[in-house]
Amino acid sequence: MTETLTALHPLDDAIRLEPTGPGAYRGATSPAYWNMAGPFGGTTAAVLMKAVLDHPERRGRPVAQTVNFCAAIAEGAFDVTVRLVRDGRSTQHWQVEMLQGGVVVTTASTVTGPDRETWNHAPGAPPSVPRAEQTPVLDTSGRAGWRGRYEFRYERGAPIPGAASAETPQPALSHNWIRDEPARPLDYVSLAAICDTFVVKILQVRGDIPPVATVSLSTYFMADEAALARQGARPVLGVSDARVFRHGFNDQSAEIWSDDGHLLAVSHQVVWFKS
Amino acid sequence: MTETLTALHPLDDAIRLEPTGPGAYRGATSPAYWNMAGPFGGTTAAVLMKAVLDHPERRGRPVAQTVNFCAAIAEGAFDVTVRLVRDGRSTQHWQVEMLQGGVVVTTASTVTGPDRETWNHAPGAPPSVPRAEQTPVLDTSGRAGWRGRYEFRYERGAPIPGAASAETPQPALSHNWIRDEPARPLDYVSLAAICDTFVVKILQVRGDIPPVATVSLSTYFMADEAALARQGARPVLGVSDARVFRHGFNDQSAEIWSDDGHLLAVSHQVVWFKS
Repeated sequence: MTETLTALHPLDDAIRLEPTGPGAYRGATSPAYWNMAGPFGGTTAAVLMKAVLDHPERRGRPVAQTVNFCAAIAEGAFDVTVRLVRDGRSTQHWQVEMLQGGVVVTTASTVTGPDRETWNHAPGAPPSVPRAEQTPVLDTSGRAGWRGRYEFRYERGAPIPGAASAETPQPALSHNWIRDEPARPLDYVSLAAICDTFVVKILQVRGDIPPVATVSLSTYFMADEAALARQGARPVLGVSDARVFRHGFNDQSAEIWSDDGHLLAVSHQVVWFKS
Repeated sequence: MTETLTALHPLDDAIRLEPTGPGAYRGATSPAYWNMAGPFGGTTAAVLMKAVLDHPERRGRPVAQTVNFCAAIAEGAFDVTVRLVRDGRSTQHWQVEMLQGGVVVTTASTVTGPDRETWNHAPGAPPSVPRAEQTPVLDTSGRAGWRGRYEFRYERGAPIPGAASAETPQPALSHNWIRDEPARPLDYVSLAAICDTFVVKILQVRGDIPPVATVSLSTYFMADEAALARQGARPVLGVSDARVFRHGFNDQSAEIWSDDGHLLAVSHQVVWFKS
């Protein structure tokens, strides 16, 4: 008898959750997705999404997720609790908490709903950009942690050292193709994470990275399961921008488009920066 | 001795909360802000914002608010509970619930933070539109409930009967001046409500209103107290758009600009529609 050892994708390893009770799970941060001073926020969003999807009472697919990053997450184990706040006919509302040592470090609200066919109208369109395979891959060799877990292909807004300064701020808009590295078929969990992969806007605009942290992140999932299956493991197109940096906070918007021009998700976040 | 009777503004009446315990309040829906099948969602957002602002441990101003509309809110009394989830150095994280008869009908997460002067950079700009006083007021006479509690002046995207149909969908973009009616100095509570005053996008685009409800609403407050004070009771400029209507949901984005061109808030919501 031979055995094929299939290695888990690093994202699937990072979001692994062991049930510890009704609506309760235990997981651990992943070195593969480490950021400067804690886990990559996208992985945290993915973990909290997976906790909802794993819940036995969950029906339908994710419609909305808001993640509030309350406190620094330390390396190591965490607990996740999931509570079905409201089980409605058209939507389910979930409240999720991530705890370390009994302290809440992250909260999330998630809405799920059944897929339905309705009027379909898409006035929004992706920007006209070269296809992924015609766009060079950003060299992330030597980048530790999560940056190596994605393949970035920038058409606009690549983080180029020296390109921006406080005196000559650059545009906040970016267009880039992105996929998991290694490639992984798109699902709601990876899509939730991809929505947080955009380079810190203050780096793109001002050229430096002050102490900075996402405070709150909201993503709306406009794709059904079939749209994700059609996209598969190919790169998606990310469009991201920011409108104002003021009083220690900036906004950040993101659209994630399939490579055949469908809007898969829209995402927004507010980011704290020190100075 | 004479007494001056100062009538409460209808919004201040609608958001009135009586403390009933630590982090617990009681309020009631307001006929003045009634919508088709429940209270106007903006008033609900305002009530939940007020509950946080009234909390004795609250420091700083609102930075972010996400409101999840879980269930229909009936006419009458409601209870609001506010929990300080995390009291951090740079932000406070709050969890809020609105209940009727012990059932959670709405949840909200709110982030507050102290005002700080930092790098200030605003690449975003408002659209070039005529000033409010040069833009005609939308006739809302005969409109019941909340629509009469705002003054709308549309430069683009006004809801004109017969202008749109499923065969000839119209753009989702709107530019309109808006203020409380009667006029009321802008604060975070009224700003939270104003972010939800945009006409149902499906009406603007398709010309009819199916059963429709906001599922989740997230607003980021980019203005400090001083910016709100400068704006006073004059109309603010709202820019709103939608990118996709699909599988029973659509996105909706909004920017709220001061009349001197500062971004006061950015807001997003995902809306359920029946067909």
